[in-house]
Amino acid sequence: MSLQSYLEAINLEISKTTYGESPEELYEPIRYIMDLGGKRMRPALTLMSANMFLYNWQKALKAALAVEVFHNFTLMHDDIMDQAPIRRGQPTVHEKWNPNVAILSGDVMLVSAYELLLTVEDRHIKRVIKRFNKTAAEVCEGQQLDMNFASRDDVSEEEYLEMIKLKTSVLLGFALELGAIIADADDESIQLLYEVGLNLGIGFQLKDDILDVYGDPEKFGKQVGGDIIENKKTWLMLEAIKKSKGTPSEKELNKWLTATTFDAKKKVKAVTEIYDKLEVRPDAETKMNEFFDKGLEALKKLKVSEDKKQILKQFADYLMERES
Amino acid sequence: MSLQSYLEAINLEISKTTYGESPEELYEPIRYIMDLGGKRMRPALTLMSANMFLYNWQKALKAALAVEVFHNFTLMHDDIMDQAPIRRGQPTVHEKWNPNVAILSGDVMLVSAYELLLTVEDRHIKRVIKRFNKTAAEVCEGQQLDMNFASRDDVSEEEYLEMIKLKTSVLLGFALELGAIIADADDESIQLLYEVGLNLGIGFQLKDDILDVYGDPEKFGKQVGGDIIENKKTWLMLEAIKKSKGTPSEKELNKWLTATTFDAKKKVKAVTEIYDKLEVRPDAETKMNEFFDKGLEALKKLKVSEDKKQILKQFADYLMERES
Repeated sequence: MSLQSYLEAINLEISKTTYGESPEELYEPIRYIMDLGGKRMRPALTLMSANMFLYNWQKALKAALAVEVFHNFTLMHDDIMDQAPIRRGQPTVHEKWNPNVAILSGDVMLVSAYELLLTVEDRHIKRVIKRFNKTAAEVCEGQQLDMNFASRDDVSEEEYLEMIKLKTSVLLGFALELGAIIADADDESIQLLYEVGLNLGIGFQLKDDILDVYGDPEKFGKQVGGDIIENKKTWLMLEAIKKSKGTPSEKELNKWLTATTFDAKKKVKAVTEIYDKLEVRPDAETKMNEFFDKGLEALKKLKVSEDKKQILKQFADYLMERES
Repeated sequence: MSLQSYLEAINLEISKTTYGESPEELYEPIRYIMDLGGKRMRPALTLMSANMFLYNWQKALKAALAVEVFHNFTLMHDDIMDQAPIRRGQPTVHEKWNPNVAILSGDVMLVSAYELLLTVEDRHIKRVIKRFNKTAAEVCEGQQLDMNFASRDDVSEEEYLEMIKLKTSVLLGFALELGAIIADADDESIQLLYEVGLNLGIGFQLKDDILDVYGDPEKFGKQVGGDIIENKKTWLMLEAIKKSKGTPSEKELNKWLTATTFDAKKKVKAVTEIYDKLEVRPDAETKMNEFFDKGLEALKKLKVSEDKKQILKQFADYLMERES
């Protein structure tokens, strides 16, 4: 199977799925956000994982979709909390409708994710929902930590890595784990695939942090420098704060971090120059590679044919090399 | 078993339950809202229902609690949407913390409800979660309809009854159904108990509408006349609009419904006088009794001993006669 075939199957399934009819304000935003697109990375991971154990991966489509629906539910609610006006180039749900609609539609999306998970075979339901509950709670914990960090200036690298693990990586781990559970894999393989997802997920988020500063504006799809404008405590920012201590950059960086009014473009340019001077980017890339390597190490230990692992390796490469 | 014993067991279970530890902003609001109290009507219904089929009702405690956690999740999110400052005499979560905290804590509460439901025996999990999903989606639909009605002046009685069925009654139906499923009741009994809850639930909401106007301020616990102040399209208001057509009250009622500035006390007094003149209260009580009777009719058909039905009958009486 190629990645393309998985993605086509996922997009077809999304186009066929109905979440409910009436009232329209409740269900239309679900179709809207699901149709905005995205990489469909999470459901693809579930299908790849199921297929590794010779499982008829088409039977896992609805469960795979549950992960995508859950992910989009978190985006809908996070966008309210972050007051984000734009998502994938389109108005966010709370902007297009209003925050109440985004709260309530999001709630129904979370319920829909559970409904889709009920399509796994009966003997797997309890385990799947138990693991999903844990993952969902962790994703919420990650979002709360992310919000808490915004008003703190003493976030450590460890705390940051823990936050992105919760907010992003555990769901990638669950996506792979889910496919393996569905496909009746043994416990060791299930655990290894979870570790693959967890580590690729952290690498994936570090890549996101790098792209937010160094992405090609033509390809990135979001505003380059958005994290810098918002003083987000990304890995690069934390590293820059650490490396600048005692250097002339310390004062300069602090000036931008505490400025209440500023020209956004100038700030992005100045902070990026500080990053360049401190050589923060290669550090971030080293860190990112560490996590990708850790993920691939776990994959190596997995007892399935090299052939079956190939697509996941390619996918990891794509995540590492991507420009958007 | 007495109602008191059920309530004590429920409150003990609530005091023992932990939802998570860190970050505090995520989990503290859950403990806060669960500790605000309330009638604990829904979990009590689940336990009564389980006990009807000679089931060791203590084993159903965590599942019963799931219904209460879900109910409180809807209150947390509804209070944001309704901008309600006070809940059970205390600041609402979005007031005490902020709306973001209320969104995210609510999300985790919904996940916690699913986790508590997983305590039912394995063979019931799929059915229980499937029915819970349907109920949860309906409750969201009811809340959306309720919000939609605020800006409409052509809501029919039928539409209103459908809205309160979704927003309030289906969860009471599910609470009774859940106990019966857990206790391995036959499908006919499960369906009958659902109908009992559905009809008692509509009666319960009509009683709420009546209390909102005619409750004793000393006992009611909320501001009497709140629905009138907000122009809520309650059953009494819809009936008053209908009955006033072509009478002198029509203009008077319309004046208050369209007034943009008004003295709240005067409005409550004047609209209550219109209700009195049109004899809307006895109509509402007749309607309420109809639904309570329908619920008790369904209970009659249930094939369990009279003795076992007694507590549910008493509970229905209490709901009908209550003053708060």
